[in-house]
Amino acid sequence: MLENKGRTELSSLGEFGLIKHLTQHFEIVNESTIKGVGDDAAVIDHKDMVTLVSTDMLVEGVHFDLSYMPMKHLGYKVVTVNLSDICAMNAMPKQITVAIAMSSRFSVEAIEELYSGILAACTNYKVDLVGGDTTTSHSGLIISVTSIGEAKKEDVVYRNTAQEKDLICVSGDLGGAYMGLQLLEREKSVFKENPNVQPDLDGNDYILERQLKPEARIDIPILLKGLGVKPNAMIDVSDGLASELFHICTQSEVGCELYEDKIPLDPMTYDRAREFNLDPTVCALSGGEDYELLFTVPLSDYEKVNNHPDITIIGHITDKNSGMNLITKNGLSAKLKAQGWDAFAKS
Amino acid sequence: MLENKGRTELSSLGEFGLIKHLTQHFEIVNESTIKGVGDDAAVIDHKDMVTLVSTDMLVEGVHFDLSYMPMKHLGYKVVTVNLSDICAMNAMPKQITVAIAMSSRFSVEAIEELYSGILAACTNYKVDLVGGDTTTSHSGLIISVTSIGEAKKEDVVYRNTAQEKDLICVSGDLGGAYMGLQLLEREKSVFKENPNVQPDLDGNDYILERQLKPEARIDIPILLKGLGVKPNAMIDVSDGLASELFHICTQSEVGCELYEDKIPLDPMTYDRAREFNLDPTVCALSGGEDYELLFTVPLSDYEKVNNHPDITIIGHITDKNSGMNLITKNGLSAKLKAQGWDAFAKS
Repeated sequence: MLENKGRTELSSLGEFGLIKHLTQHFEIVNESTIKGVGDDAAVIDHKDMVTLVSTDMLVEGVHFDLSYMPMKHLGYKVVTVNLSDICAMNAMPKQITVAIAMSSRFSVEAIEELYSGILAACTNYKVDLVGGDTTTSHSGLIISVTSIGEAKKEDVVYRNTAQEKDLICVSGDLGGAYMGLQLLEREKSVFKENPNVQPDLDGNDYILERQLKPEARIDIPILLKGLGVKPNAMIDVSDGLASELFHICTQSEVGCELYEDKIPLDPMTYDRAREFNLDPTVCALSGGEDYELLFTVPLSDYEKVNNHPDITIIGHITDKNSGMNLITKNGLSAKLKAQGWDAFAKS
Repeated sequence: MLENKGRTELSSLGEFGLIKHLTQHFEIVNESTIKGVGDDAAVIDHKDMVTLVSTDMLVEGVHFDLSYMPMKHLGYKVVTVNLSDICAMNAMPKQITVAIAMSSRFSVEAIEELYSGILAACTNYKVDLVGGDTTTSHSGLIISVTSIGEAKKEDVVYRNTAQEKDLICVSGDLGGAYMGLQLLEREKSVFKENPNVQPDLDGNDYILERQLKPEARIDIPILLKGLGVKPNAMIDVSDGLASELFHICTQSEVGCELYEDKIPLDPMTYDRAREFNLDPTVCALSGGEDYELLFTVPLSDYEKVNNHPDITIIGHITDKNSGMNLITKNGLSAKLKAQGWDAFAKS
């Protein structure tokens, strides 16, 4: 039925047929997955480990724009975004469930593309798809992913346990996903004005990939364990550095000093920000979607994390009364504001 | 801010404010819930139990109609529907996550109503809300619930393990939720034609409640344990008896004989079906949304389940080659068809 490379209507397969068709290439790789897709619920045995659970919902036109986000990339990204939350607990993701509502605008082939991205993420992160739901929507595409992970109880790291004098660290670099988005939005508006103009995206692979194919830092919990470091607090950077620091500081009842000149920026992020007349620091602070891990470690771990290629020390935790401050490049102290992306903010 | 009984816009609270506002009345009641709402992921310790996970997505206009479904009932029902899947594994639900996308058509007060229903279900079933997501949608309301349960590994019951000669049993009665829906749809169309006519729903409480406030049969796994019965196969009746039997038989590679005169119907379901010129048996076979549990038990357990007020024996499992048959009231054998609700069927 699906050999024809044309358009197959969702209604032609039926709900159970569609689920079977979409999940046929997914294999169980984790010993903890006793039963995956095909029953009322999945069965998981984490034995002496605790179970971590996180849910995200992504809505077309709010979280993603299919005019420049290919379906396969979208599938990969929705999984990545959710697994990132498990990594942010210093845990390892092991299973996911995926619920999708889509309008009849989408063909079976389009949803196959989406699932090929989900499969690529499952394969890359060694995660099992163990359940979900597919249904119709009246408009657009809505995807909800729940990820399930495991960790030793004593290894779990929360947001609300940062300690005074902790070093503030971040993996990778920041602001790239936001600059990738700016570039895609610009080319979209150029295309809208003149559909004959080809998009000019050459030489921007890194920031485009940061936006279109972000990775969950599943390697960081392993790396930290190898270094003998257990963070006091951790969170992933989904809404921007400032917003995440705000969560850690308010929930831990501490303050912080963040050094502007320490914030890791890729040169491409820096250059494109300048071209767009944007402040590169603001891109890192408020951009979001980088899915790097932000964590605090005891000062005594300084030698273990200093100069590590995957980790940058960007500041330290202070007492609550000192507030949250950004030490600018010219040495001034400015109040830091949480300007993270807000789903209900009036635009 | 919310004391005014008027309309509060979602945008006035912001995403984090809204989550905090909606979840403030939820208390953790299960020892297994180590960390609930408020971090990147929930932390759960099922110790020597296995973890069960199930996800459902409900879409306005597809799964529910807000013209006759009050928001509070909807909140209760979305939780119930999902917990039912955990019960159908012979397990006990313990935690849920709730992801919601809603358009700006909805006020904070409306979403509060929804959450008051979710809270009522959590309280009734002793389940902890441990996470979720709230976001905007371009049209309507979409709710995705993931429920997490626990069971001893040896107690879990699957769909695909029914055995020849097993007795087929069902809890409660069937077809009521479907008849409740017919009644609501009739009154809606009467109202559309003449808004001055008041809905005529008197004396139909039972079937209306079956549709608007179904219950998950969390009591059945406990009851069966008390009777010393472990089912060979189990599933919940969400899409109609025929469809669920079809799942058990095809996945277990067996056939069945179902006795029409044994199918439990409430007298009100029977009477209203007749008034609507519907065959009451068809309502039970194809209606769905009853959320009763359908299970098969070894013939040797006959005395334990026979004449139990909460359980009805409705047939038995046969060999695969005999197929799936309905023995009608006049003693004829008819091929049973799976006519369960299909999310993508052309109407």
